[in-house]
Amino acid sequence: MNNRLPDNFFKDLARVDGLIIISSANEIQRYSRDFYDYSPILLEKLGHCCADFVVKPLAIDAVIAVAGICYKYSIPLTLRGAGTGNYGQCVPLQGGVVMLMGALNKIRKFDSFTGQVIVECGCLMGDLDNYLSTKGRQLRILPSTWRTASIGGFIAGGSGGIGSIRWGFLRDPGHLLALEVVTTEKDPKILQLNSRSSESLNHAYGTNGIITALTLATSSLIQWQQVVIDCENWSDAVHLLQSCANASVNLFLGSLLEKEIIEAIPNWSGVSHGKHRLLLLVAPDGVTTIERLSSSIGARFKDLGGEGRGNGLRELTWNHTTLHMRSIDSNWTYLQMLLPQNEVEAMNIIRKKWGKSILWHLEAVRQQGAQRIAALPLVRWQGEESLGELINDCKKVGAVIFNPHVISVEDGGLGIIDSDQVNTKKIFDPKGILNPGKLRGWT
Amino acid sequence: MNNRLPDNFFKDLARVDGLIIISSANEIQRYSRDFYDYSPILLEKLGHCCADFVVKPLAIDAVIAVAGICYKYSIPLTLRGAGTGNYGQCVPLQGGVVMLMGALNKIRKFDSFTGQVIVECGCLMGDLDNYLSTKGRQLRILPSTWRTASIGGFIAGGSGGIGSIRWGFLRDPGHLLALEVVTTEKDPKILQLNSRSSESLNHAYGTNGIITALTLATSSLIQWQQVVIDCENWSDAVHLLQSCANASVNLFLGSLLEKEIIEAIPNWSGVSHGKHRLLLLVAPDGVTTIERLSSSIGARFKDLGGEGRGNGLRELTWNHTTLHMRSIDSNWTYLQMLLPQNEVEAMNIIRKKWGKSILWHLEAVRQQGAQRIAALPLVRWQGEESLGELINDCKKVGAVIFNPHVISVEDGGLGIIDSDQVNTKKIFDPKGILNPGKLRGWT
Repeated sequence: MNNRLPDNFFKDLARVDGLIIISSANEIQRYSRDFYDYSPILLEKLGHCCADFVVKPLAIDAVIAVAGICYKYSIPLTLRGAGTGNYGQCVPLQGGVVMLMGALNKIRKFDSFTGQVIVECGCLMGDLDNYLSTKGRQLRILPSTWRTASIGGFIAGGSGGIGSIRWGFLRDPGHLLALEVVTTEKDPKILQLNSRSSESLNHAYGTNGIITALTLATSSLIQWQQVVIDCENWSDAVHLLQSCANASVNLFLGSLLEKEIIEAIPNWSGVSHGKHRLLLLVAPDGVTTIERLSSSIGARFKDLGGEGRGNGLRELTWNHTTLHMRSIDSNWTYLQMLLPQNEVEAMNIIRKKWGKSILWHLEAVRQQGAQRIAALPLVRWQGEESLGELINDCKKVGAVIFNPHVISVEDGGLGIIDSDQVNTKKIFDPKGILNPGKLRGWT
Repeated sequence: MNNRLPDNFFKDLARVDGLIIISSANEIQRYSRDFYDYSPILLEKLGHCCADFVVKPLAIDAVIAVAGICYKYSIPLTLRGAGTGNYGQCVPLQGGVVMLMGALNKIRKFDSFTGQVIVECGCLMGDLDNYLSTKGRQLRILPSTWRTASIGGFIAGGSGGIGSIRWGFLRDPGHLLALEVVTTEKDPKILQLNSRSSESLNHAYGTNGIITALTLATSSLIQWQQVVIDCENWSDAVHLLQSCANASVNLFLGSLLEKEIIEAIPNWSGVSHGKHRLLLLVAPDGVTTIERLSSSIGARFKDLGGEGRGNGLRELTWNHTTLHMRSIDSNWTYLQMLLPQNEVEAMNIIRKKWGKSILWHLEAVRQQGAQRIAALPLVRWQGEESLGELINDCKKVGAVIFNPHVISVEDGGLGIIDSDQVNTKKIFDPKGILNPGKLRGWT
């Protein structure tokens, strides 16, 4: 076992009821990583990070005990959901303890009047969504890893995804309605926070409180239909995506992939016809309208019908697009941005300089109440300097970058220190033991 | 009986099965009007308009027969739903026959998979919405006269209303999915039009085909909660309305009324506290979020709970606001516009010149995929010239006017002749007998 940590620390931990202690070096290494290898930069920065120790509480009492013991010995404590993130959200920057939250996975309460659900942090989103479907409800926003991601991890570190075309981003008011949080102090408390108090823990990567349960808004269940539209011309395709998003049609996904991407990724949307492709999830009553919009520009429309149990359009979009491209050629990495509203012009400028070392992958999103286009372009890795230059070029044409190649909470967002996040950490994590180094505003 | 029409015309009509003929002068006058008296200008222009004759078909066959007979004798034919419009939609500009469509009121089919409903034109929206609620669905967009308006009349002449905050406007693709139409030609045909072909009859005031049935998209039924928020400061109130509309909360109504209006209209939203008031219909899971947004600016929040059977917030908004104000003082009239995106600044400029002879009534709407603010301000009637000056002032600050004081289809919209509407009239109404004078592009 690890010698960096004090003996009494281990003794205290060993006494905790309902706590699994994982000491296999392989397991510890595995639980110290997420999918940050999408970024060569993060791979270099985080590759050496490793927990000293991994614990898995089976109940909240064990979480409280671990919080108290880590506080007592000033041991860094990093929370881990399902580890499906791409930004090192759960990577212990200064070692210490990684706490696996997966056993806290109960769905505690469903309110059939409001549709609100109270769920423990470790519940997998796929399980939660399946449960909700039996109640005529569904999750509003999901990552492409929705089957295996944990709900706590998604709220703590996600931002948008499937559903963002209708429901915007996780930090928009309306999604996260309450949190149960365990503090890391001498006598850790278990707190029930209302939606206002919960905000500062939303997207704080678990650095200012241990989220143990969440109250979330859901939406009416819809039998989404998978629609695929092929376009010869990129500009037409972008405008069609916008027409679809602006129409009075209920959409759950509106992705557009350049033809080179369609040729490379799995054929779950049908074989490539050498054209750019829109991938849409459409409410049943919207399919004929989308077909009409599509035919008005002479695009090739295909209704693939309802979603099955296996992989479908969802698993070709958002960061799964990146996943598939990297599985073929790990020299692909990616960026994340909100495009300026002269989308096509901006992309043309970038294309002119960067050619096909950037391939466009667009996602229609709702941002500040308006339908906008986000991009998660594939980027050919040509070193950090080149990536920096590309980022600058994108900023110059008016894109807002959400850089996935950085390790701090703030740098991945708007680069601004959120004083509410920091103030919350002062109260809930006074010693700053929750993954030190991750919240830049603290360190 | 009327002498302007040929004797054989009457004889032919009398032979039609299932056709009620109304010849009382009082009834004829009543059925020649709608609520155009909201506009002193329309009152002057339309006050003298009167049908020669009113018929009420009890089945489609009778509609077809009337269409053929009017064609044969070249008699103007004007369609009337429930007559709840405000723009003289169903006023026979050149006399002739008014045809009451109210007996064609069957709900023909509901598709539980898509939620689409096929309904005859004369069905009252209140009845249709009640029916849909038994299927877990509801109408997407409703006028404030939703209890008594007919669905055919609303599609033929309405534009938006309650629900526009989420679903935009009736002409946005996605609402109207198909139409059944009877032509006015020698041998009238009954046609089934798909969504594309239906578009040119959408908002054509029944001037280019007789709509007998409609296929419409609906939405999941939500138990809307009535929320009222009082604000001291107008600018704060406008920004709060925008925050609510931009939040990830399902809203069905977002209205803002100046305090002078709140003091005057019925107290179904609670007694006035001398403040500006937001009237919101909020999904149950959104109420706490709206409360949070409200309290963040120190506004006074009140949750009135679910909607009852009687009058509620709906009946205080859209053109019911105008109705209530006019019932107190018929010198109030109104305008309709989309505000420019510097809303408060624009309203301040107008206020500075026009004082309280204009009272602001705002409605949050979705327009081209973005949350925007429409206004239906109350306007103190000071003559046509003054109204024209106000309209110009509103245009100068960037508002887009939808003038409710004009009689043609085009002038009430963007002032542009829609060649599709005109071309459809050429085919479906070759003699131009459907309310001649109403479609400017034809005459």
